[in-house]
Amino acid sequence: MFQLIKTEGSARRGEFVTPHGTVQPPAFMNVATCGAIKGAVSALDLKNIKCQVQLCNTYHLHLRPGDDKVRQLGGLHRFTRWDGPILTDSGGFQVFSLAQLRRIKEEGVYFASHVDGRRIFMGPEESMQIQSHLGSTIAMAFDECVENPAEYSYAAASTERTTRWLVRCKDEMARLNELPETINRKQLLFGINQGSTYDDLRIKHMKDISALDLDGYAVGGLAVGEPTEVMYRVLDNVIPHAPYEKPRYLMGVGTPSNIIEAVWRGVDMFDCVMPSRNARHSTVFTWSGIMHAKNERYMTDDKPLDEQCDCPTCRNFSRGYIRHLFKAGEQLAGRLAVTHNLYFYNTLMEKIREAIEAGEFGAFREHYSPLLSRLVDK
Amino acid sequence: MFQLIKTEGSARRGEFVTPHGTVQPPAFMNVATCGAIKGAVSALDLKNIKCQVQLCNTYHLHLRPGDDKVRQLGGLHRFTRWDGPILTDSGGFQVFSLAQLRRIKEEGVYFASHVDGRRIFMGPEESMQIQSHLGSTIAMAFDECVENPAEYSYAAASTERTTRWLVRCKDEMARLNELPETINRKQLLFGINQGSTYDDLRIKHMKDISALDLDGYAVGGLAVGEPTEVMYRVLDNVIPHAPYEKPRYLMGVGTPSNIIEAVWRGVDMFDCVMPSRNARHSTVFTWSGIMHAKNERYMTDDKPLDEQCDCPTCRNFSRGYIRHLFKAGEQLAGRLAVTHNLYFYNTLMEKIREAIEAGEFGAFREHYSPLLSRLVDK
Repeated sequence: MFQLIKTEGSARRGEFVTPHGTVQPPAFMNVATCGAIKGAVSALDLKNIKCQVQLCNTYHLHLRPGDDKVRQLGGLHRFTRWDGPILTDSGGFQVFSLAQLRRIKEEGVYFASHVDGRRIFMGPEESMQIQSHLGSTIAMAFDECVENPAEYSYAAASTERTTRWLVRCKDEMARLNELPETINRKQLLFGINQGSTYDDLRIKHMKDISALDLDGYAVGGLAVGEPTEVMYRVLDNVIPHAPYEKPRYLMGVGTPSNIIEAVWRGVDMFDCVMPSRNARHSTVFTWSGIMHAKNERYMTDDKPLDEQCDCPTCRNFSRGYIRHLFKAGEQLAGRLAVTHNLYFYNTLMEKIREAIEAGEFGAFREHYSPLLSRLVDK
Repeated sequence: MFQLIKTEGSARRGEFVTPHGTVQPPAFMNVATCGAIKGAVSALDLKNIKCQVQLCNTYHLHLRPGDDKVRQLGGLHRFTRWDGPILTDSGGFQVFSLAQLRRIKEEGVYFASHVDGRRIFMGPEESMQIQSHLGSTIAMAFDECVENPAEYSYAAASTERTTRWLVRCKDEMARLNELPETINRKQLLFGINQGSTYDDLRIKHMKDISALDLDGYAVGGLAVGEPTEVMYRVLDNVIPHAPYEKPRYLMGVGTPSNIIEAVWRGVDMFDCVMPSRNARHSTVFTWSGIMHAKNERYMTDDKPLDEQCDCPTCRNFSRGYIRHLFKAGEQLAGRLAVTHNLYFYNTLMEKIREAIEAGEFGAFREHYSPLLSRLVDK
């Protein structure tokens, strides 16, 4: 299902065959939290911006409209009209970051919905059932995302529980994939590595979950407040213990530089709200660095956001027009900028793949890792 | 420039040749107030929803980004990337409806910007200069839009002044169209009929402005609070006095039924924010009547908004998905609904044209004028 085409050091150019099409890693997954990319971008638009995988959020869709409703409407593919691979997270991260009044027990988590305060229980079985209803290509295991910094003893106990939850996830997924009414009976399951910033916990947990022979392995609980260097150190230490022949996914990361550095350390898949969220706040990624599209200097600038970009926005619209749309509060501003930023991220992954294939990723990293974090309009 | 292809009673199927392409009236102009259709719809999308004319607002664009900036960026066509005809209003209506602290003098209007309170003067010459900078296809004359109800004496004096302003508009437009640096030296000018709800004032004013031999004639100051029957009565009385061989434009109107009734009375062109504004508030026009897309009954409805519609939204997305997007506050909801409503309006005009060509507009009117105002989900 996953095979390596080329490697350069720890960096991997792979191919990942799924029931909804083949993913070419390293790949960035485009985040459609509630079943739609924020900024009025539709699943049909994703085809024009090199998106490979759409990511949707289990927690949000369970609360609204309800996974049973999505199931009645044919599952996420039919609901959103995206026919490629879809990854759903487990809901765990949102339960721990958004929900209120949560109590964690061995059986799962009791919490109050951030939408209407309704009391909800979610455990491994519930998370798998919801994701099965959503019919995604890849389901994520239900885990506890430990906050950073965390006490060692808490992190250790939590990570053990996440392993026990993972066994239950795997069993429940196997049961659901046997049911005749299941939308995607070939749904894949990725486990999630936790352990806060403690390398020994991280490594032990990765070894434990690797033994379960899942379809892929994610590293969770990073980019949640710790310094970037700590994230890189954890990756340096834990990634070598992830199964070599399975895809590796770094959850919720990150800047273009973060992605380049993580690919360098052996990661294959990414997701992050940064490109779409920053775009809606007029911060745009370019091949010369980071640009603030509302800057006064662009008022009468007829050039595209990025002269090196051939996204639908840059092929058609000027900086002057986009700046005006942002200043006037027009929603089209967000759509044009989100389209550009997602295209930029998806193209970044394409260039990373080409660099690995050509054996030039080391030079690519040295050039672009600092460059893409530079501010161009300071 | 304007020629009639077919008539049925007072209804007219015409052809209107402009420097930016031929308009097929009866036509509905799609409103892009600040140079963008609200709801994240771009000028490029307009090509896919049968739009013939884009309408932009002089007042808004003068305040922000400034017509000088739009001019530096090549004019509205290059700015918004719409290559078909563009009509700009004169700013008059917005000065009277949006601006604060306004004082009306013979020379023009002094007012405060609703954006930043800045003191601004706009008279006929300024309005023509701004519209010339914007480079639209059709400029509208600067007029006073009298509120309804209005005192007869005020309406009479105002209408006289609007005629004097029109003469100044015509002279200034002629001067601007001679300047080598003018973006569109073939810019057309439409006069605007006023006179509140007083038929004699309306008729006298229409006769006065008709004598100026302009490129087209609009009826303004209707649909501003008076009963619909009064609007139809004014049209019945004033339209016969508009030049037969020039396009007639009813400003800011209206519902599908209003449009059918006005075409019946001899109107050729329309504009209204209703389809886009209603869409953003989840009210959708269909061939069975008016639909509230957030209604609970659509929660698991896999059908398109309108089963008789083949717009980009209805070809792809379900009521259940669109309802969810509205409930979740996703901007994509507005974009999909605006796309549908504008397509509906543009298709309504197409069907009206076909009905007139076939000599069946009377039957069309009897069937659709009541039907399209019906609520389908009450």
